[in-house]
Amino acid sequence: MSSVSPIELRSDNCAGVAPQILAAIEAANTGSALAYGADSVTAQLTELVREVFQHTEAKVFPVLSGTAANSLALSAMCPPWGSILCHESAHIFVNEAGATSMFGGGAVMRGLLGENYKLHPEQVQQAFDTTLWDDAHCSQPSVLSVTCPTDFGTIYTPAEVSALGALAASRGLRLHLDGARMANALVALGCTAAELTTHAGVHVFSLGATKNGALSTDAIVSFDAEANDQLMYRLKRAGQVASKMRFQSVQLLAYLADGLWLRLAQRANEAMSALSAGLRTLDVELLAEPQANMLFARVGQPAIERLVAEGLLFYEMGGGVLRFVTSFQTTDDDVQEALRRVERALSPR
Amino acid sequence: MSSVSPIELRSDNCAGVAPQILAAIEAANTGSALAYGADSVTAQLTELVREVFQHTEAKVFPVLSGTAANSLALSAMCPPWGSILCHESAHIFVNEAGATSMFGGGAVMRGLLGENYKLHPEQVQQAFDTTLWDDAHCSQPSVLSVTCPTDFGTIYTPAEVSALGALAASRGLRLHLDGARMANALVALGCTAAELTTHAGVHVFSLGATKNGALSTDAIVSFDAEANDQLMYRLKRAGQVASKMRFQSVQLLAYLADGLWLRLAQRANEAMSALSAGLRTLDVELLAEPQANMLFARVGQPAIERLVAEGLLFYEMGGGVLRFVTSFQTTDDDVQEALRRVERALSPR
Amino acid sequence: MSSVSPIELRSDNCAGVAPQILAAIEAANTGSALAYGADSVTAQLTELVREVFQHTEAKVFPVLSGTAANSLALSAMCPPWGSILCHESAHIFVNEAGATSMFGGGAVMRGLLGENYKLHPEQVQQAFDTTLWDDAHCSQPSVLSVTCPTDFGTIYTPAEVSALGALAASRGLRLHLDGARMANALVALGCTAAELTTHAGVHVFSLGATKNGALSTDAIVSFDAEANDQLMYRLKRAGQVASKMRFQSVQLLAYLADGLWLRLAQRANEAMSALSAGLRTLDVELLAEPQANMLFARVGQPAIERLVAEGLLFYEMGGGVLRFVTSFQTTDDDVQEALRRVERALSPR
Amino acid sequence: MSSVSPIELRSDNCAGVAPQILAAIEAANTGSALAYGADSVTAQLTELVREVFQHTEAKVFPVLSGTAANSLALSAMCPPWGSILCHESAHIFVNEAGATSMFGGGAVMRGLLGENYKLHPEQVQQAFDTTLWDDAHCSQPSVLSVTCPTDFGTIYTPAEVSALGALAASRGLRLHLDGARMANALVALGCTAAELTTHAGVHVFSLGATKNGALSTDAIVSFDAEANDQLMYRLKRAGQVASKMRFQSVQLLAYLADGLWLRLAQRANEAMSALSAGLRTLDVELLAEPQANMLFARVGQPAIERLVAEGLLFYEMGGGVLRFVTSFQTTDDDVQEALRRVERALSPR
Repeated sequence: MSSVSPIELRSDNCAGVAPQILAAIEAANTGSALAYGADSVTAQLTELVREVFQHTEAKVFPVLSGTAANSLALSAMCPPWGSILCHESAHIFVNEAGATSMFGGGAVMRGLLGENYKLHPEQVQQAFDTTLWDDAHCSQPSVLSVTCPTDFGTIYTPAEVSALGALAASRGLRLHLDGARMANALVALGCTAAELTTHAGVHVFSLGATKNGALSTDAIVSFDAEANDQLMYRLKRAGQVASKMRFQSVQLLAYLADGLWLRLAQRANEAMSALSAGLRTLDVELLAEPQANMLFARVGQPAIERLVAEGLLFYEMGGGVLRFVTSFQTTDDDVQEALRRVERALSPR
Repeated sequence: MSSVSPIELRSDNCAGVAPQILAAIEAANTGSALAYGADSVTAQLTELVREVFQHTEAKVFPVLSGTAANSLALSAMCPPWGSILCHESAHIFVNEAGATSMFGGGAVMRGLLGENYKLHPEQVQQAFDTTLWDDAHCSQPSVLSVTCPTDFGTIYTPAEVSALGALAASRGLRLHLDGARMANALVALGCTAAELTTHAGVHVFSLGATKNGALSTDAIVSFDAEANDQLMYRLKRAGQVASKMRFQSVQLLAYLADGLWLRLAQRANEAMSALSAGLRTLDVELLAEPQANMLFARVGQPAIERLVAEGLLFYEMGGGVLRFVTSFQTTDDDVQEALRRVERALSPR
Repeated sequence: MSSVSPIELRSDNCAGVAPQILAAIEAANTGSALAYGADSVTAQLTELVREVFQHTEAKVFPVLSGTAANSLALSAMCPPWGSILCHESAHIFVNEAGATSMFGGGAVMRGLLGENYKLHPEQVQQAFDTTLWDDAHCSQPSVLSVTCPTDFGTIYTPAEVSALGALAASRGLRLHLDGARMANALVALGCTAAELTTHAGVHVFSLGATKNGALSTDAIVSFDAEANDQLMYRLKRAGQVASKMRFQSVQLLAYLADGLWLRLAQRANEAMSALSAGLRTLDVELLAEPQANMLFARVGQPAIERLVAEGLLFYEMGGGVLRFVTSFQTTDDDVQEALRRVERALSPR
Repeated sequence: MSSVSPIELRSDNCAGVAPQILAAIEAANTGSALAYGADSVTAQLTELVREVFQHTEAKVFPVLSGTAANSLALSAMCPPWGSILCHESAHIFVNEAGATSMFGGGAVMRGLLGENYKLHPEQVQQAFDTTLWDDAHCSQPSVLSVTCPTDFGTIYTPAEVSALGALAASRGLRLHLDGARMANALVALGCTAAELTTHAGVHVFSLGATKNGALSTDAIVSFDAEANDQLMYRLKRAGQVASKMRFQSVQLLAYLADGLWLRLAQRANEAMSALSAGLRTLDVELLAEPQANMLFARVGQPAIERLVAEGLLFYEMGGGVLRFVTSFQTTDDDVQEALRRVERALSPR
């Protein structure tokens, strides 16, 4: 263990709770309310979600985690004999231990190739072309799932999401968005929440509040009537309907109200911009230009060990590559101190 | 809607968060920590659970809800071709929408009869006697699940749990305890937490913090090595491993530390004692003597409507029967005011 | 082991293959044909099923077993959060090891009481009355399943099935019929196949050929468009779509053509009539008047042991009760010889 | 439809039943027998399987289809949070509609690349290296599944299977073999059945009788005690335990006795040898040298249309490629006539 004060760059999951969100929880702790979402706070949340995402029929379902949000949403969009097409690096494919297949009753995920960790219409079309449609031997493609930002920090534009949505619709697939870091994407793109979701043909998405300042909640947002009918039952059976849901809903209310979610994400993105600019000055090799709050750099194994000794907290990806992630809590001072430590680590005496 | 100020007696789920627990969350919101339970608060919680339940190998798994705690625990205790024996009024059987069969891969629940909403050795033995053991036609009994207090407020003594545990063990079944209101039972029984669980042969139980003051967490506590190995994977796949688990763990730490959980439950039980004593004075017919924080009274349909008009909040059970539940937030004033309203409703001018 | 020649009364499952069915298989073993049901024999079978059951849209899905036919049909009729109401003695509830919950993704079965092992409208109505409809806590009743004949040999009349179907429809449930011994019921009732199924409001049923002379096939027959769309996929995923399906289809063709199935069942029923008449002459206590090909008699444990010694093959039900089942292979001589042995066993010297 | 007599080269699934197997069924249709495998024929089959595969503890489980054999075997070898590594062209991955994920409770299949449609140690090792072992985010590799012959007709040697088995064992995975055409592989390799299975480290395999002359049965053969304990229950719940199992067992007895399975496969392989030799004489481009009973040739789309007009029955794979499969029923005359038609189709006047 280093004696120096550590700087947190492992994951935005490691951050704490945004003070505005904690204050909202405290303020909500008065009186009593019906359990399981039949409370006025949850009703307010629904109204706000409809406003922010510009869809009068949108429903919001608070759940505990992004894995819950993704896998349960997908189980309501895909029959058990269906398949979900996603990028081979997608979190749902690689990092959720088969949650989607479990909740989906044996639905399978099909990982496609694609540059920059993104799905592209060519690969999706190729998957369509090699499918035996309406043939019971073959899991039937039913959902296209995009992750934005991807787990490697790259971002789809609204136009790219729209193009994938139109292609999906051409064969009857619905479009799912894993928005675990959606706010970071919106800030980076400078577009509205509706432009990346409702207007781009997304049917159901994960809101992704946890990594960006919430205490104990993520949420499914759905514009899809058929999925909505199922989700109330699917979530209950999954133990994902909190009895004191109002304390989740109030977090999400505070998160979405007055653009707090965007301000929190902006801080994370700005910290990343400063960090990557500084690293470039230090001639560090970045694997790609960071678009949101995540970067990958190749520094070699000896430098990685010196960075650990310097008290920088980050993930090692193997092959001398490290991952830095900033969060809403990352300050300018954190960035400057991190850069000083990187400089020392790269230029050992 | 009544214009009088309502008195909350619907469910302990309707209560808010205990101030001590909220304060603990606030205090924990400093610095950063590894996600998914690899943090020091969760480690402390494990130590405290081992101390409180007097079992050096106990593990604790924070989850979102009681349904999650029950169904995931049972899925780790029962093979897909197994059956879980429980009372026909058990929450897992009646109120969890098949969660246990879903997570259990098709495991079935078998509801048994029994006086006072409790399992008795005779009925369990009868279920054993009518089982085709080791016959693939018949779901094999694998777990005995008791609920204490039951959903109708009755309580098993440690001796009763022990007797059921011994009977279960005689045929290779493990013992599960749905402890959604465990603290209320412990206070009513005047026994230690270990006496009702570890010492009574319980292998895995639900801790039940939500109804008794927590904000967003329940937990599975397990003394069973085989279940422990499975639960880490089963919970992740169920989206029940919170990334910021430390904020669940700190709630449970505060809950169990210094007997807070027992003090909160004591308040609920005392309020119920005062309420039932008062109702008896008013000649209200109680279906049974309340043992914890729940009572059922038969007052007839007209009186029920007048009680609603009086602003009393409670559940109607059909047939002119109502349910009152007190919580850690129910004050002596609430009880006295409730009694005044009952008196008025029963003696209309 | 007795040295006398045994007489088979254990189960109609113990019988062999009807010669007409074996001959049909042999005749079909010419040339080649497309696999998985895309053959002309299967097409002919579909036509015949539509004619016999008087439904122009009926579909037939050959499967390996009655368990497969029941559980897969029910999985296509019930959402994962639904429940299937059946008699507590139903084969699907007691003898299929949770197959329906497994294929149904966690759907649950709810066993109801009812005289003569049959469902009655009163109990079904009571189940409806205690259901929390449209409440996610409660598995939603979605299918009513009747077994005719029941596993205890009792029979529903077409009017009784119709009444249950109408009651089911009043709450949006569909009607399933477990017809494992349907031909025996039709012969006993003297009604047409359509009167007990199509005309009585049945949506999907199991045909039950195996116990009545087929070699290796049972079948799902469905009048329900929604289930039909699902079954092709559900069966493939269950490994229940035989590649050489034509050899199953030809068994079913022979079975249904020219009333063979009814003639085979008639033999079994007549043998049972003769057996029960003879037993009554011998003052054997029958638990009920056998309606089809199954009877239960209480003879006491010592007599049971002497019957075993006499080489009678039957099932012991506990409590000195035995079960006799006749099949299409049971001859008049078998019955007379069985009666002689019963007489000897009951009057030991 | 061509008026010429068609020649069947679509699939060995299109063939009929071997006369020896049909004769065995007829001979077995005497007397009665206990259902569900508790009969003497099934006991004999077990003895024969132990002898043929040289394993004194082997168990054999007749099922309806190869999909059932593969998916149920895998479900008994892999926990729900596990993954099954296979080639990306494997039948279990591409052609079974997610059966393995369904029976496996959400277990996932991971398709690996590999030359000649075969797994090679390098790719398996790479999959191991990129796995987060003992990390709940990541489905844990638990089974390695090889298909021999592959769906593209290529064959693993016993040494190759052994090497994969050893590599699998090094990380605690078990080895599964999809033997849908195992007999064709054994004939091509000239090795014993034990050399490709027991001696090569295979734990459980599919026997694959249907494509090679059986009427209505495939089978799981297992050398794995843990899987054996589960399979009895898993098969019953899947409706894969035939009540008249003796008529499946007797097919498998005839199949394995006196090397019938190898003689049937030898005919198919010899027919393929003659066919491929003739095609090479005609300068047809073969995608690979056929090793068993399957070949792929690129003839171009116009020639494909002429082949169809000539009454040749085969599968089109897209891109002007066709697949020919021979079976135990393919005669020398069939081959010579097929070659004459190919010659005409390739040299139109």
